[in-house]
Amino acid sequence: MKTIILAAGRSRRLKPVADKNFLRFAGKYLLEHQLEMMQQTGLEDFILVAGKHNLEQTQKLAEKFQAKVVEQKDLDQGMAGAILAAEPEVNGEPVLIVNGGDVLGQSAYEKITQTGDADAYILAYKVDSYFPGGYLELDGNRITNIIEKPGEGNEPSDCINLVLHLHKDSNKLFETLKATNSESDDIYEVALAKLMKEQNIEAVHYDGPWRPIKFPWHILDLMEFSFTMMGSRIDESAEIADSAIIKGDVVIEAGVKVFDNAVIQGPAYIGKNSVVATNALVRNSMLGENCVVGFGTEIARAFIGDDCWFHSNYIGDTVMGNNNSFGAGAVCANLRLDEKEIKESGRNKLGPIFGDNIRVGVNTSIMPGIKIGSNTMITSGLVIAEDIEEGKFVSGKTELTIKENTAKLDQSSREEMKDKLK
Amino acid sequence: MKTIILAAGRSRRLKPVADKNFLRFAGKYLLEHQLEMMQQTGLEDFILVAGKHNLEQTQKLAEKFQAKVVEQKDLDQGMAGAILAAEPEVNGEPVLIVNGGDVLGQSAYEKITQTGDADAYILAYKVDSYFPGGYLELDGNRITNIIEKPGEGNEPSDCINLVLHLHKDSNKLFETLKATNSESDDIYEVALAKLMKEQNIEAVHYDGPWRPIKFPWHILDLMEFSFTMMGSRIDESAEIADSAIIKGDVVIEAGVKVFDNAVIQGPAYIGKNSVVATNALVRNSMLGENCVVGFGTEIARAFIGDDCWFHSNYIGDTVMGNNNSFGAGAVCANLRLDEKEIKESGRNKLGPIFGDNIRVGVNTSIMPGIKIGSNTMITSGLVIAEDIEEGKFVSGKTELTIKENTAKLDQSSREEMKDKLK
Amino acid sequence: MKTIILAAGRSRRLKPVADKNFLRFAGKYLLEHQLEMMQQTGLEDFILVAGKHNLEQTQKLAEKFQAKVVEQKDLDQGMAGAILAAEPEVNGEPVLIVNGGDVLGQSAYEKITQTGDADAYILAYKVDSYFPGGYLELDGNRITNIIEKPGEGNEPSDCINLVLHLHKDSNKLFETLKATNSESDDIYEVALAKLMKEQNIEAVHYDGPWRPIKFPWHILDLMEFSFTMMGSRIDESAEIADSAIIKGDVVIEAGVKVFDNAVIQGPAYIGKNSVVATNALVRNSMLGENCVVGFGTEIARAFIGDDCWFHSNYIGDTVMGNNNSFGAGAVCANLRLDEKEIKESGRNKLGPIFGDNIRVGVNTSIMPGIKIGSNTMITSGLVIAEDIEEGKFVSGKTELTIKENTAKLDQSSREEMKDKLK
Repeated sequence: MKTIILAAGRSRRLKPVADKNFLRFAGKYLLEHQLEMMQQTGLEDFILVAGKHNLEQTQKLAEKFQAKVVEQKDLDQGMAGAILAAEPEVNGEPVLIVNGGDVLGQSAYEKITQTGDADAYILAYKVDSYFPGGYLELDGNRITNIIEKPGEGNEPSDCINLVLHLHKDSNKLFETLKATNSESDDIYEVALAKLMKEQNIEAVHYDGPWRPIKFPWHILDLMEFSFTMMGSRIDESAEIADSAIIKGDVVIEAGVKVFDNAVIQGPAYIGKNSVVATNALVRNSMLGENCVVGFGTEIARAFIGDDCWFHSNYIGDTVMGNNNSFGAGAVCANLRLDEKEIKESGRNKLGPIFGDNIRVGVNTSIMPGIKIGSNTMITSGLVIAEDIEEGKFVSGKTELTIKENTAKLDQSSREEMKDKLK
Repeated sequence: MKTIILAAGRSRRLKPVADKNFLRFAGKYLLEHQLEMMQQTGLEDFILVAGKHNLEQTQKLAEKFQAKVVEQKDLDQGMAGAILAAEPEVNGEPVLIVNGGDVLGQSAYEKITQTGDADAYILAYKVDSYFPGGYLELDGNRITNIIEKPGEGNEPSDCINLVLHLHKDSNKLFETLKATNSESDDIYEVALAKLMKEQNIEAVHYDGPWRPIKFPWHILDLMEFSFTMMGSRIDESAEIADSAIIKGDVVIEAGVKVFDNAVIQGPAYIGKNSVVATNALVRNSMLGENCVVGFGTEIARAFIGDDCWFHSNYIGDTVMGNNNSFGAGAVCANLRLDEKEIKESGRNKLGPIFGDNIRVGVNTSIMPGIKIGSNTMITSGLVIAEDIEEGKFVSGKTELTIKENTAKLDQSSREEMKDKLK
Repeated sequence: MKTIILAAGRSRRLKPVADKNFLRFAGKYLLEHQLEMMQQTGLEDFILVAGKHNLEQTQKLAEKFQAKVVEQKDLDQGMAGAILAAEPEVNGEPVLIVNGGDVLGQSAYEKITQTGDADAYILAYKVDSYFPGGYLELDGNRITNIIEKPGEGNEPSDCINLVLHLHKDSNKLFETLKATNSESDDIYEVALAKLMKEQNIEAVHYDGPWRPIKFPWHILDLMEFSFTMMGSRIDESAEIADSAIIKGDVVIEAGVKVFDNAVIQGPAYIGKNSVVATNALVRNSMLGENCVVGFGTEIARAFIGDDCWFHSNYIGDTVMGNNNSFGAGAVCANLRLDEKEIKESGRNKLGPIFGDNIRVGVNTSIMPGIKIGSNTMITSGLVIAEDIEEGKFVSGKTELTIKENTAKLDQSSREEMKDKLK
């Protein structure tokens, strides 16, 4: 059997976060975590379907797993295009199709591969409340149809379709895909409907962990999930001040420096060669490599890429890419004044979302849930309450009134104030 | 003897602070402190005069002291109305009239109740410099007149009238009050002038503590005063990190959590279930219940109600009610640039004054002495230099200029900067 | 031999920093350091040339070194005027002319005074790359001309003229100066050119330390240099909290207080009676006397005068005079968004430069390299991106929109948020 892992898609909804497959959770790419988990359930013979944008990274990663890599040239062909791109490597064997961006528990892979006599199997996830996905119409265990987003109250069952699909007759699958036309991005789904009429396609019921990554805040959910499997470890090359405090499940990689009075409150992951400086606090967060969490910064419940620099900032419930810098006093707001849900996230705490190569000036405030595109600079003292596209330079308008200073400073109050300090 | 405690009035000058009687100092309402002190000097048979706005709270508190509660329906009737409201509970006994909002030392109650043969006694407070109150005209100890705000240099004596008045013949008092008319709010004063002609009303001299609450900053004075009597105590249910530092007279109530590297520098009072988070500093301040003093916040010389949340703020010389929240980087300025007196407070350090249910956005600055009314929201990055009425939503005007970013980031400087960190 | 120290000039380029001679490095005036170093090389009989602005301070300092002080009345006469002002004290002896603002290593003084048979000697500093100064035209060791700023590629040698000049025949020097006229500020240089034709003036080669102070950022270079000679010492009268951390070469003077969890990371100098408050960090910096580094402030690589107050600020790569105050959240930005060189400083990290008696409001941001003149006040929440002249009052324009607040606060989220704190 071959395992086809779909990793070519670039989600518009994830923007300004680049490629979910190569987000690093606790030092490993998401795709790497996925492959390791599949390997542990006994899967092998992986075919990774990459796009032009991540082909090189995917090829590099593939070596570790002796996986094949194929390129999907036309991303507009969606899932069908991805599967057909893998055809030359399949050689008529059964195929397991995996969505690289959906994180499932190990048992999902175990269940789908312990198959019976049906022609194909689809992972059926039981939902407790309405979810805008594809619902399975079932006749016993046999799937007779998949109804996309039927609307609350119209669900044919409480099971939704997760993309962990086993097709025993891969040639039949490829032929059906090639014989299917559709004006929209659903060739695979239409082909599947055809196959259901000819084949016995069964549901494999699953109620374990499922962490899809569609929107940026899903990355925070996945971070939480991956904390539960991270463990605790401090590399011996890390330099940690005696007065620093490290509590809970914390992984500190090689070359990290933790300065005086810094606090790392687990779960937390600090990537290679990063610095947590004096009086900084990192909690419930993951930091990439070569980051500097400067004096007096708090990073809370945030997912941070490589080469990000902070200095007396508050960064909370935030997702950011690589090579970003924040001037002193810049704040990522993470709560609306009315404490209501932020955008469509289902959360009342969510910071801004950042791409890569961003510079933010001192004392600038970025509002909850705002998206800041890559390669953008934002000057000092601003309030950013709208999404900023990639590659922008954002400044404000400062009107100063400069008059003669007629005030005299009475020094008598100074000593009194100093007394009050004690 | 009956003790009538006047607690119905709502001071306009105290706004946006609500009801001084139910401000909590070190966990107890001001009115509760007052009643306890009176009880300790042997007073009993209390009649509490409440208004509609605090009737329920007053009734609840009264139980503890087996006090009667009467409602003053028409607050426009002032002190005379309050006293007459108490009449049905007096039963012709002598009455001691106490102003609930004036804090006096225990000796004031002891002196006024160790009376001689006069018909009535008034507490006479010796002032060192001119005070805009009612001055006693004295013939020996007998009071012949009370002159309101005579102006500096025109004082008939150096004694002013404090509302701790003992009337032996309460029926005479009630009759006189009923027979007195006045267009302004001074029926009691006019009636008193009448009584002086028929009765022997004597001054009881007192020079102990006197802490009136007329303006919000008086609450800070009273806080200072109450620190001197507070003592030091940490509830055994409090969770205090090993690295937290607690010095001086500090009371920490049940359920409080103090996180790593937090400093509480006494005198300070931390109410039930409040949190003082990592790297926060609380000094010379009182916090109510369920407050959260977030990372990197300093609270200095401030009086804080219940359910207030802070996060990387500076809050100094401030008075605030309940259920307020401050975004990261919001600052309560407490000193004018010219270091002069703030409003009419007599102080050069005074922060803003806050009512209840207020939300302040990140990096917003509120100027010294500014009053922020209850149920108000203030967005991020603003400078608030004017009083804000109750129930307002305050926003600013952000004009962003968004251009293409033509700057290239030269990464060469990064390693050098990181070296400088050490 | 007499040593004439030129200390009268007021450098325009150093503005808003006042007088470099009386900047205090590690507690001693620059001029004092210079005199001590000269004394250690055996020099004596100092003549200090002061201006009206620093005459009194110079006279006071002179006592310690039994130095004469003369006043240069007309500062427009430049170096020639300064030398001629010293004439009455020279009595025909040889003169060593020293520029008080150029810091040299001890060996420079040793070399120039171990003279041979020439009539005069000039310190010749070897440069590795083009420097906009006066280049020596040499015939062997004999100096035949000095060419000011020849432009790169046109240098007559790799030696530049430093003002450490020994003239054996001082009368001849004075006569030549008096006989020279020039429309610009270069009478001394023109006279020197004349003398070269009649006298044998030789170069004394020197390649040791040279720290000129022309621009404000040179003060930071000199600070770095003086750290190397500062040593480490904590006065026994200093009060240092047990939890404070002091590392590296740190000098703490008498009366200093260091509060809980403060970190002083050497090299650092803390002047008399200064306070480093709770959770503050001072590193690679010099603080004058009576400063207060309030809660949560970071001072990094900064040169700070006396009586400066900070409170939750970031102050980095900054030079400032005396009696300045910064409201909470005010930030000295020290890095451009594009990380390029700041002004003509040759640095990519440089904060603003401050004169004396400045007040900066809360949450105000001052951009890298900006100069703030003395006696200036800047209100809150501003971004200062232009130089501010002396004696100004700088305010912004706040346009608030105040509406009715229609939002309701849902308290349900509070407990959940509190849980997340842990």
